[in-house]
Amino acid sequence: MTSLDYFRSGPSGPWRIVSIDGFRGEALPRAERLDIAAEAAQPAEAPCWTLKGVAGHARYATRRELDMLGATQASLGRREATCAALIPIRKSQAWWNLAQDERRVIFEETSHHTAIGTAYLPAVARRLYHCRDLGEPFDFLTWFEFAPEHAAAFDALVAALRATPEWGYVEREVDIRLVWDPAASHQAASPKS
Amino acid sequence: MTSLDYFRSGPSGPWRIVSIDGFRGEALPRAERLDIAAEAAQPAEAPCWTLKGVAGHARYATRRELDMLGATQASLGRREATCAALIPIRKSQAWWNLAQDERRVIFEETSHHTAIGTAYLPAVARRLYHCRDLGEPFDFLTWFEFAPEHAAAFDALVAALRATPEWGYVEREVDIRLVWDPAASHQAASPKS
Repeated sequence: MTSLDYFRSGPSGPWRIVSIDGFRGEALPRAERLDIAAEAAQPAEAPCWTLKGVAGHARYATRRELDMLGATQASLGRREATCAALIPIRKSQAWWNLAQDERRVIFEETSHHTAIGTAYLPAVARRLYHCRDLGEPFDFLTWFEFAPEHAAAFDALVAALRATPEWGYVEREVDIRLVWDPAASHQAASPKS
Repeated sequence: MTSLDYFRSGPSGPWRIVSIDGFRGEALPRAERLDIAAEAAQPAEAPCWTLKGVAGHARYATRRELDMLGATQASLGRREATCAALIPIRKSQAWWNLAQDERRVIFEETSHHTAIGTAYLPAVARRLYHCRDLGEPFDFLTWFEFAPEHAAAFDALVAALRATPEWGYVEREVDIRLVWDPAASHQAASPKS
């Protein structure tokens, strides 16, 4: 099934935003916290920005790659994974003008996108969202979760991907880092006994 | 660029609906006319049903196929192409669970989808819209235009595709046939001098 999620920044939400960097192109405005919800309904406070995407079927992975990922990847929501990253990306028109076989060659045979990611499993859990068809300012959102001791490995993963030929087609990329901090959020500020 | 279009049925619109058949699964309610617009704004009369989709990049075609299509296919809006078909399709979860290489094999190497379509170029012009990510009841909408003398060829094209292994994954398909008839529509009923 497809799953539509909303990433809403603002004063509340269980994830505290540590940094927002524009790796390529325009960054996003600074915000304090992030909330992830399946509904468009806004919290009482106006959000700073909202990004949405659909987690659906794989666009490039082969059966062999999907089976390998299925056997190795970690699920989201692990208790120890208190660090997260949200990386919205837009690719150029030149990318979208390519045929499927040309995109596949750049994605995997040349850039080894899945192979690079696999080297960091199961430490880094991820979910890819597509948003190009939704009229969003980005084509993809990727949400990553990892434990603090894997933060350096995550930085290495991101650096490895950015060094690939595929990244020559990335025209906007924002790098948002977060930590799990629900106790201090408005939403989780219910009375503690 | 991606292009979002709305197919709105109701009492007005330049295309008169000749028939609506549920080829597989539930059909759509009977309606008189169809209007195609880039905005969600509704006409004065309430629409009967509205379908929307995004015409974007090709999902399976190789460079060789795209070049061949680019050299052969006709554009929409030809004066003589007064017949049209709108065919909304939903594929099964089993299809979407397949990997890209498995879907490609079924789509082209086994079912010869592009090759079959090519046999009817340039008589039949088409545009494919994706709508799965939009939360629509269908995954794709395809809009076809052809001259009346090619109506039998169009029926043969549709029958050939429905006989392929790929169609085993189609769980809902509606076949809507239309004719270009702007003079009788409300929208075009401006004073005639």
